Amino acid sequence: MSTGIDTEAATAIPQRLLLGSGPSPVPPRVLAALAQPTIGHMDPAFAAVMGETIALLREAFQTENLATLPISGTGSAGMEALVANFVDPGDRIVCGVNGLFGVRIADELQRAGADVVQVRADWGRAIATEQLLEAAAGGRTDAIFVVHGETSTGVAQPLGGLADWCREHDALLLLDCVTSLGGHPLRLDEDGVDAAFSGTQKCLNCPPGLAPFTAGERALDKLRRRDRPGRSWYFDLSLVLDYWSPGPTSGRTYHHTAPINMVYALREALRIAVGEEWLATSWERHRRAHHALRDALAVFGCERLAPDGEQLHPLLAVTPPAGVDEAAVRRGLLVDHGIEISGGLGPLTGRLWRIGVMGAGAKREPQEQLVAALATLLHADPSEPLAALHEGWRA
Amino acid sequence: MSTGIDTEAATAIPQRLLLGSGPSPVPPRVLAALAQPTIGHMDPAFAAVMGETIALLREAFQTENLATLPISGTGSAGMEALVANFVDPGDRIVCGVNGLFGVRIADELQRAGADVVQVRADWGRAIATEQLLEAAAGGRTDAIFVVHGETSTGVAQPLGGLADWCREHDALLLLDCVTSLGGHPLRLDEDGVDAAFSGTQKCLNCPPGLAPFTAGERALDKLRRRDRPGRSWYFDLSLVLDYWSPGPTSGRTYHHTAPINMVYALREALRIAVGEEWLATSWERHRRAHHALRDALAVFGCERLAPDGEQLHPLLAVTPPAGVDEAAVRRGLLVDHGIEISGGLGPLTGRLWRIGVMGAGAKREPQEQLVAALATLLHADPSEPLAALHEGWRA
Repeated sequence: MSTGIDTEAATAIPQRLLLGSGPSPVPPRVLAALAQPTIGHMDPAFAAVMGETIALLREAFQTENLATLPISGTGSAGMEALVANFVDPGDRIVCGVNGLFGVRIADELQRAGADVVQVRADWGRAIATEQLLEAAAGGRTDAIFVVHGETSTGVAQPLGGLADWCREHDALLLLDCVTSLGGHPLRLDEDGVDAAFSGTQKCLNCPPGLAPFTAGERALDKLRRRDRPGRSWYFDLSLVLDYWSPGPTSGRTYHHTAPINMVYALREALRIAVGEEWLATSWERHRRAHHALRDALAVFGCERLAPDGEQLHPLLAVTPPAGVDEAAVRRGLLVDHGIEISGGLGPLTGRLWRIGVMGAGAKREPQEQLVAALATLLHADPSEPLAALHEGWRA
Repeated sequence: MSTGIDTEAATAIPQRLLLGSGPSPVPPRVLAALAQPTIGHMDPAFAAVMGETIALLREAFQTENLATLPISGTGSAGMEALVANFVDPGDRIVCGVNGLFGVRIADELQRAGADVVQVRADWGRAIATEQLLEAAAGGRTDAIFVVHGETSTGVAQPLGGLADWCREHDALLLLDCVTSLGGHPLRLDEDGVDAAFSGTQKCLNCPPGLAPFTAGERALDKLRRRDRPGRSWYFDLSLVLDYWSPGPTSGRTYHHTAPINMVYALREALRIAVGEEWLATSWERHRRAHHALRDALAVFGCERLAPDGEQLHPLLAVTPPAGVDEAAVRRGLLVDHGIEISGGLGPLTGRLWRIGVMGAGAKREPQEQLVAALATLLHADPSEPLAALHEGWRA
């Protein structure tokens, strides 16, 4: 019986090697976990899954925060949740802006009615801590918000010194760690971060759809002091926490329906990322993979945007070789070789390749595939860049 | 190598027959679609998947709205998106409240700064159209917001007469159709609904994690007239639409990263729900399944909360038999028989069973399993209720 819709026209899903800015390669084990039978979100078995996921997330964040959970949306929903809970209208927020994701946070803060003090650096550079603190000292500052891993440029923001200032001045330190979580050194509690959000589709190698999120007592205290409900019901932590992490004596209270199968997948991805490999070992592997690939691409004439010491290991942003049609090469990688890498964003459109070095993508074999395919498309001899790659992995 | 986390402790996922208030039974085909390889969200193949999903969603909503898409969050995110886009601070909104989901919408509207005029009916009853219109006529009303299918009570709200008034008075008709979409008669365009949201885990038999959403020109016109960005970046349709449904000449613009695998699953679920069965045939099947199960449960002494003519076919809410420990029976169904049904919410806690009659759950075989298991737990002879069920399916 025909209903007028051509259901035969369902486009087939191709197999890709995902070495772009995310999503990253999802292991078969995680896809299998995703496809486990859906059960009820108030089922005791699902409560156990939630608890196990939270424990693994705390390890990934290196935090003991009780308020640690995956927000039911993608990474950007984590940003919105963070602002909805910890930024009030009229708050003075110092916001680091050195790439697209800083621009986005500033936009979100403005929508929330905050007085946003933007501290800018060139796209491709970290922001000097002194500049952030100078801006913070320019008024009664409620929070400093920075992007730990700028996905648009491959820059890692140093956090040293920010937490001390915030503690001395009753301000919060808020963090976007979408691309750094699990792949770049980050210890939430040690770094003194008060609240942070991330995404699942970067170094955790899980499909997109959840936003790992954590908040400490200083942040929650601010939330508790609110005299009226925040602007968002969906992201209101005071409700969400009773659903995800009820107290020892209270039962779970229905809020929304969690994305059940996505939680299965995140639990499995975290078991791989932080349950089976030491986090510090993984960070070192990401560092090594970053430098090996950088050395290999340098043979083609690609230069890294971030200077030494400011690079984000999970995202290698390089200039394409001079004279090359960068979009055509990316298209060739995707169509002829099934490999995805990403281009530049905003002012860097057409001037950048952004290559993911994330989790299962931060290994020698996928990088070999990429280098060999690039050599073919650039009509270059693959032996020298492959030798550089191998040398980097031996180092 | 041990990392201090007991990864062996991962709780196994049991197999359940989901006949509660949602999630509903997810067919193996949909789970298989979910587990297809993750690809990039800017991959041309994913753009094709998005387009096919949108076409199927339009069919499910019975709308030609260009702005039809799944919001990247669960059903409640759809509510938040609807309010974030179409309700401005100070707007006067008439809101029907006859169950938990109406209460929730009123809360969300208040958070958005609206002047909320609540029109209440008893939990378990529909709201009289005249009452809604009388309240709307009490001031310059910007929108009427009602819940088409109240999941907390199993009541369907009649929509007749609302759209005409809204068109005459420059107001919007906004709708929650989380539990009705695909299972209870609803024709968005014919009913004159200006914007609506739904969930995937009810009659569409897809795991939770996306919110089907649609908005017509009258609603979009209001959005376009805004002189400043709305309170939400994540749900801002003026940005999301450039990502999901770019114009014929413009390319897709990156906004957030869609929950890629969830979109695969929704596409497959929609192919089953509206691609392979006529929607009207499915509505009739839900109606028949509702009445058959109601007749069967009546033999146990269960009475339906909603009176005739106000019942929501996909959700049968009944009183448990007198003298029965309703929570113990539900626990027995889950633990001994692997069958989930839901209890009452709010003032109806302990006084209601809510049974899903949704998609693959609106069939004879799962209902037979439920009735037989209930008979066992209630120490009743199953033959009479099963005969009533079969008679209902023959009718």
